[in-house]
Amino acid sequence: MKALIYRHKNTMENFGLELADVPEPELRDTDLLIELVAIGINPGDTQIRQNTEPEPGGYIILGYEFSGIVKKAGRHTKGFQAGDRVFGIGDFMRNGAYAEQMAVDYRNVNTFPSGSPFDHAAAVPLVTLTAWQSIFRVNGQLPEDVKNIMIVGAAGGVGSMALQLLKARSSVRIIATASRPESSAWCRKMGADEVINHHEEILPQLRAIGLEEVDMVFSVNGLKDSIRWVPEVIRPYGYFAIIDLQGAVDLGKLMQKSVTIFLEMVFTRSIYHYQSELPAKVLAELIELVKAGKISAPGTTIFRGLTVENMKEAHAMIENGNVIGKIVLMVAE
Amino acid sequence: MKALIYRHKNTMENFGLELADVPEPELRDTDLLIELVAIGINPGDTQIRQNTEPEPGGYIILGYEFSGIVKKAGRHTKGFQAGDRVFGIGDFMRNGAYAEQMAVDYRNVNTFPSGSPFDHAAAVPLVTLTAWQSIFRVNGQLPEDVKNIMIVGAAGGVGSMALQLLKARSSVRIIATASRPESSAWCRKMGADEVINHHEEILPQLRAIGLEEVDMVFSVNGLKDSIRWVPEVIRPYGYFAIIDLQGAVDLGKLMQKSVTIFLEMVFTRSIYHYQSELPAKVLAELIELVKAGKISAPGTTIFRGLTVENMKEAHAMIENGNVIGKIVLMVAE
Repeated sequence: MKALIYRHKNTMENFGLELADVPEPELRDTDLLIELVAIGINPGDTQIRQNTEPEPGGYIILGYEFSGIVKKAGRHTKGFQAGDRVFGIGDFMRNGAYAEQMAVDYRNVNTFPSGSPFDHAAAVPLVTLTAWQSIFRVNGQLPEDVKNIMIVGAAGGVGSMALQLLKARSSVRIIATASRPESSAWCRKMGADEVINHHEEILPQLRAIGLEEVDMVFSVNGLKDSIRWVPEVIRPYGYFAIIDLQGAVDLGKLMQKSVTIFLEMVFTRSIYHYQSELPAKVLAELIELVKAGKISAPGTTIFRGLTVENMKEAHAMIENGNVIGKIVLMVAE
Repeated sequence: MKALIYRHKNTMENFGLELADVPEPELRDTDLLIELVAIGINPGDTQIRQNTEPEPGGYIILGYEFSGIVKKAGRHTKGFQAGDRVFGIGDFMRNGAYAEQMAVDYRNVNTFPSGSPFDHAAAVPLVTLTAWQSIFRVNGQLPEDVKNIMIVGAAGGVGSMALQLLKARSSVRIIATASRPESSAWCRKMGADEVINHHEEILPQLRAIGLEEVDMVFSVNGLKDSIRWVPEVIRPYGYFAIIDLQGAVDLGKLMQKSVTIFLEMVFTRSIYHYQSELPAKVLAELIELVKAGKISAPGTTIFRGLTVENMKEAHAMIENGNVIGKIVLMVAE
């Protein structure tokens, strides 16, 4: 089958992805073999491309979010058969979805209604799980004492989904940060009650909307900059959810406020085989929210065709930090 | 009044504390004036002595845990009168309890039964609040999905109280770490189900008691060393409570497991005037637990007399890391 692979980690300059003929995925007993139709492109993909070297002589296929059609179901899978329209997340420890086919554990997958197009379905699973597991952290809900939440760098995929999920599943006041007029407008559309500019002084903007501090901060993007001011705006015994950690963080100021930190990496369950049944449950609730018209797929950029050129442009958009909503690539139509 | 003060921060070598005549504390409307009888000496005291410089020309009185007798009650206090036997915690932003008298907000104080001696009462408030707020973090309880907890460096004051509180208020399996035979024995006495040695390899010791990982770790003492192995033994989506943070911490391995971190500094409420009513409530429940015979005051070293020599010896014990239970100093008898 055709796949976009890389043999050595690379910066954007060299990029390093190539379209190659590779063997079909090997199926485990708990796997589905998926014929891919659409894939979501995420910041995690570009980070792995830059930082993770394949085994000597080997290669990596990126891509951890997809929609497609079940081609074959392993003998220990449950509830799937060939022909099912499915969407789901991949596994960081295995080959991914930048390919014509992919093998994936059935517990990371769910079917989706025939009314939903494949590009929408591919735009949601990974960002939904990431946002969900970052903020609905106490028995699947926000901590009880959270009445408002700030989402830092909210215009991208995870932020867009977090905004929609918070609107659909809670009654908290939602403050998004964004910096451009179009990303601010997008955040409001996705559900933000307020939008402030993270390139300007934060506290005066907070005060202008009647707040001195916030109960919870969700850092989706830009922690390297925001770590300077986030400790100032979190309330004592507040919550700080982080998905974009890079390098050591000085926790001194957060300590002084006795903050709770929710670290989240969406691949934790697949790496450690921990509560593997949860992703499918979250995707099932997501489908109900979509059916109820409470959530829509925030795919705003669609590429057509599994080519190096398309993928390079998608990665460049992410690394430039200018993505609004989600990037989806159609592998087939 | 007499007080132990310091005019410049100092290491143990110079120490820098002196016994001086200073003005009586000024009383705010929400303050009680306390005639001190006994005070607890804590690791926080020695850290402030080493790191916090007084205002130019000024001085600092350390000591944030005490028992004594109410001498005067400010007009906006509730429920106290002169002659009451009380115990409580001080306020990091104000002068402390290394003195004959002290002014303290009434919400940081509670009365204690006449059957309990002053030295016992002085040994518990700060360590109780510290342990409580570190581990009973979800609506005053442990997270629901915690079935076992490891307390690292458990033989000191906070660890001893954490062990007792866990035994009294939960049914989780408690693993303490200690390194000497006498501290191990102490941890068992305080309620540890298992004790392992943090100077030896951790995983083989865990496996020997039938565990591959733990749901929660509470770092009371020794994070600088234990940060190397704690990420290995915490389960995915586990919990890490920290009170002994110093400097930046690399959260990468904790991120990979999507760990929740509870940072705790017992002075957060007084610094930020946040939920100021909570300490008195916790102390009230503590008294009930003591009355019920479920918790005892872990004071094991008693000094008599507010002298530089006594205090220097107490601080040296703490800095040498050899304290079992709590150190109490009798200001009066």
